[in-house]
Amino acid sequence: MNETPFSIEFQPIGIRLLCTEPVTLLDAARQAGIQLHSTCGGKGTCGKCALTILEGGGSPLTRNEEIFRKGGILKPDERLACEIIVQSDTKVFIPPTSFEKAQVLQTEGEFKQITVASPIHIEELHLRQPDLAHPLSDQHNISQAHAQLNFENDDTALKVLRNAATIIRTGNWEAFAVCNHDHIFHILKEQPKLKVGVAVDIGSTKIACYLLNLANGNTLAVEGVPNPQIAYGEDIMTRLSFAMQGSSSQKHLHDLTMDAINQAISELCSRSGISSESSMDFCLVGNTAMHHFLLDLPSRSLATSPFTPVVDQELYITASEIGLKGMPGSKAFIPGPIAGFVGSDHLAFLFSEEFGKTGAIRLGIDIGTNTEIALQKGQRIVSCSTASGPAFEGAHIRFGMRAAPGAIEHVRITGDGKVKCDVIGEKPARGICGSGILDIISEMKRTGILNKRGRLDLNHPGVHLGEEKVRYFPLIAADKEQREISISQKDIDQILLAKGAIRSGISILMDHLQVKSEDIEEIIIAGAFGSYLNPYHAIQIGMLPEIDLSRIRAVGNAAGSGAKMMLLSETARLEASDLAHRIEHLELNTYPDFDMFFVHGIRF
Amino acid sequence: MNETPFSIEFQPIGIRLLCTEPVTLLDAARQAGIQLHSTCGGKGTCGKCALTILEGGGSPLTRNEEIFRKGGILKPDERLACEIIVQSDTKVFIPPTSFEKAQVLQTEGEFKQITVASPIHIEELHLRQPDLAHPLSDQHNISQAHAQLNFENDDTALKVLRNAATIIRTGNWEAFAVCNHDHIFHILKEQPKLKVGVAVDIGSTKIACYLLNLANGNTLAVEGVPNPQIAYGEDIMTRLSFAMQGSSSQKHLHDLTMDAINQAISELCSRSGISSESSMDFCLVGNTAMHHFLLDLPSRSLATSPFTPVVDQELYITASEIGLKGMPGSKAFIPGPIAGFVGSDHLAFLFSEEFGKTGAIRLGIDIGTNTEIALQKGQRIVSCSTASGPAFEGAHIRFGMRAAPGAIEHVRITGDGKVKCDVIGEKPARGICGSGILDIISEMKRTGILNKRGRLDLNHPGVHLGEEKVRYFPLIAADKEQREISISQKDIDQILLAKGAIRSGISILMDHLQVKSEDIEEIIIAGAFGSYLNPYHAIQIGMLPEIDLSRIRAVGNAAGSGAKMMLLSETARLEASDLAHRIEHLELNTYPDFDMFFVHGIRF
Repeated sequence: MNETPFSIEFQPIGIRLLCTEPVTLLDAARQAGIQLHSTCGGKGTCGKCALTILEGGGSPLTRNEEIFRKGGILKPDERLACEIIVQSDTKVFIPPTSFEKAQVLQTEGEFKQITVASPIHIEELHLRQPDLAHPLSDQHNISQAHAQLNFENDDTALKVLRNAATIIRTGNWEAFAVCNHDHIFHILKEQPKLKVGVAVDIGSTKIACYLLNLANGNTLAVEGVPNPQIAYGEDIMTRLSFAMQGSSSQKHLHDLTMDAINQAISELCSRSGISSESSMDFCLVGNTAMHHFLLDLPSRSLATSPFTPVVDQELYITASEIGLKGMPGSKAFIPGPIAGFVGSDHLAFLFSEEFGKTGAIRLGIDIGTNTEIALQKGQRIVSCSTASGPAFEGAHIRFGMRAAPGAIEHVRITGDGKVKCDVIGEKPARGICGSGILDIISEMKRTGILNKRGRLDLNHPGVHLGEEKVRYFPLIAADKEQREISISQKDIDQILLAKGAIRSGISILMDHLQVKSEDIEEIIIAGAFGSYLNPYHAIQIGMLPEIDLSRIRAVGNAAGSGAKMMLLSETARLEASDLAHRIEHLELNTYPDFDMFFVHGIRF
Repeated sequence: MNETPFSIEFQPIGIRLLCTEPVTLLDAARQAGIQLHSTCGGKGTCGKCALTILEGGGSPLTRNEEIFRKGGILKPDERLACEIIVQSDTKVFIPPTSFEKAQVLQTEGEFKQITVASPIHIEELHLRQPDLAHPLSDQHNISQAHAQLNFENDDTALKVLRNAATIIRTGNWEAFAVCNHDHIFHILKEQPKLKVGVAVDIGSTKIACYLLNLANGNTLAVEGVPNPQIAYGEDIMTRLSFAMQGSSSQKHLHDLTMDAINQAISELCSRSGISSESSMDFCLVGNTAMHHFLLDLPSRSLATSPFTPVVDQELYITASEIGLKGMPGSKAFIPGPIAGFVGSDHLAFLFSEEFGKTGAIRLGIDIGTNTEIALQKGQRIVSCSTASGPAFEGAHIRFGMRAAPGAIEHVRITGDGKVKCDVIGEKPARGICGSGILDIISEMKRTGILNKRGRLDLNHPGVHLGEEKVRYFPLIAADKEQREISISQKDIDQILLAKGAIRSGISILMDHLQVKSEDIEEIIIAGAFGSYLNPYHAIQIGMLPEIDLSRIRAVGNAAGSGAKMMLLSETARLEASDLAHRIEHLELNTYPDFDMFFVHGIRF
């Protein structure tokens, strides 16, 4: 037995899992939120969970695996995820045929343990059987069954009673009341197997849904689905423009989002063996545009100065009011956004990372097309948002691409000037993703290929002049199976603009709260890109302030973690609400000398 | 000028109006809830409001009328309702072509004057225009505009804010909040012309809708429409059976009812020159089945012993929750039924007649297929319901018909044994309606044609033996244009069963509260049939206890009046609610010696 932690890296998705005990790769994949085909349920008899070990070892080939290799169902280098047990660092490649879903999106964050305190509880109802001498109404019967319980309002009473009439009669005047605080919101004939709720983080590109056991806080299942709004624009502004075409466009984006969430919920419930109308409580977070689309609110004011949200306070609404699939009468907790471009996802991230609990000087960053930054110093927490653009997601970069098979993920320039590329999955390389771009710029700067002003040095032998005299630097030369992949001055300019936007945001917050780099006790980076990012290179190119690398921490989908915490605990909801009211929002464009900060930010 | 009251009777509808001042027949018709064609708005120039004076006089022919007579647009005996002024008893006949609607149903009751105290009020909102320095959300902006105002709950807040975003911007940050108590439920750009609400009495055969000015209590318009549920059964039991076929049948009856009410509301609003989404508050009453169909509640329990309602408390629900057409966010006050067969219409009737306000001994009766009866003595009010059947509406009677043109309305037997019939509208008579049936039985009893046991006396020369040896008594002999109309022993048996059911209900209540006939200070009869009923004959046949005729009063659609009062005043709602809790319900079938009371009730 090996008690020191080891990591398992799943490619081509790039998800890493930290383990302390030997584990089958099938279980490890499940823990990482990756669904592999497995008809036999892990007995080694269906042969569907095939994968390849790229690095590391594992337990020897089993008899089942031998049989599948002989039968040609497993390729010579493939193993069954359910049969192989690993106990040291391992890197595996999952072929597309082994995925339960075509693509799995990152949904995992560092989930903090909290004391579960859900407002949901289930109570037994012993009702009286009416007779001609006591022909009491169902309403009266249910109301007097429990002294503490009532209906939240008359609309709820009506909806509950519509359903209850048949249930209490077929259940022979015994029933179960599902309650939120003191309010009955649904009546069931039988006690539900599980008390469950759903937390959702609506990202611009992906939606992460978590099915949680409200009794003990366990995550029962996780599902990541692409955000279908992408069809109406990669970036938020394009989607806002579409929504502004009219209330039917706005409604269409709302409906698309709800359909995706509801499908994910059905999938989560079916995987857990419960009906798709089982969820008794919800918590949903997202950036301000996602928040408005979710609530079917007019989003026009988000697209034009002064970028005011319609709603900025938390709402605890009836789930069906926004078309969420759950138990009739269930509610959805929707934290309010902080500002037009700082959403409730940022709040959830800061909350899950316990911003405001201590007075430490900490920086929280969620890098995306729009990057939200918060700086805490003492009792103050100031947030801002900056339009960093989609360069780190590979857009506007000639060979740019998302972190997917074929993407150059990490780059190193060796002492003799050779470029070494790590490609996700198998070669040939098809392009370069955000973390690779960051690496190459840092490495070119270190080796002097890029000068201090961010220009490719033509005196360097690796730098060439291309079409229209644009300088470029090849990373991978062309051969039979491989096209040439290079980075140009234009690409570098895009990246410098993006990192400049982020750095100027950080610098303005630091200036505003009078914080120096050496004061910063911790930098916490949320989101998928944060997990791939090499912090050393991020500092090298000047995106992050210079602090000790050990003080930089990537936390994955922290917004999802925050949403889970708020779903599970009323105390968490109150604390997050307090935090939201404490966070000050700083509008960068109106900050004195904003332009100067930006010019400085672009520089190395 | 004539200051003594005079009556105007409109045929073929049979509506009477009591006036004290000279009035045009057009205005009188409007006051009686009858809509006549009038394109010119009463200027005497369109010639559409033609009618015939059957009895009484009126002001001389005008120049306009002369012109229309010459042009053949008015027949020689016709007048224009807008031109003729009457100031003494008058009876008029309205030809079908002059009706705005094919048929007008009785909607008028004696409306008590009450102090208007509606929970609805409209407040001006002066909002702040947000800028980059103060990018305040719409939610925050509206919440801080009025210290006393807020949203009822988060669902309301969301709905209001969805609509408000555009309104407050196009209104240049000035708007009007429509409020119920302290709760904003809708935001408008412009101040509404009128503050209006709708009261509805859902009867089994007709639905009466009233548009009221919530500021001063005035009735702006009245609309009576047939209850479309009739397609699924004349009586409640048949409709309940249909609803029991499944939730879609139940929903269908709900939808039909809502469609009819919404159409009536649109008509009321259009007549008053306001949008059909203007109603800011509602009050709806009806018998228990109507109440359950209205709320789309399962009605199965109403059809089987012990006949328990699902809901029996008042509800103040969002109008859109049951599909009512009104201002977004408006609510509907739905008083609870008293028992499975004593509905909120009976409560509304008793409330409008001030039951419970004094300790007087009073009997309240609403005669229909199901007859509800309440007896008050001191602090106690006891109600019951009795299945009187549809005989008084003409069903199961050979020549029975509703009170419509061609119906024998009143009958008298003269000293020389001749039968005199009053027929609604013009002869020939087509049948006999409830009040006529009551008259003829009473007259036959008085003249000995019927003996004490309710049998036609074959010794009387007017009594004949018909097919299957069934005795019968002709009322009108046949001639060229007239078929013979008679009443048979079978018809008489039906009526005796119906009056027996009513009388046994009254007698049991009297026995229960130890009340004798001579103690009764007042009998109040509600409903359409009550208005046509001759109280003398009702006592003669033993349907009502023997009391002085001056103590019997018909009040028309008193349920509608009660609904109006509850719409207009919160105090009225509280008082009606108190009354509802005070009314005891007596189940007749379990009363000791019920059978004996019924046998006695059938007798004369």
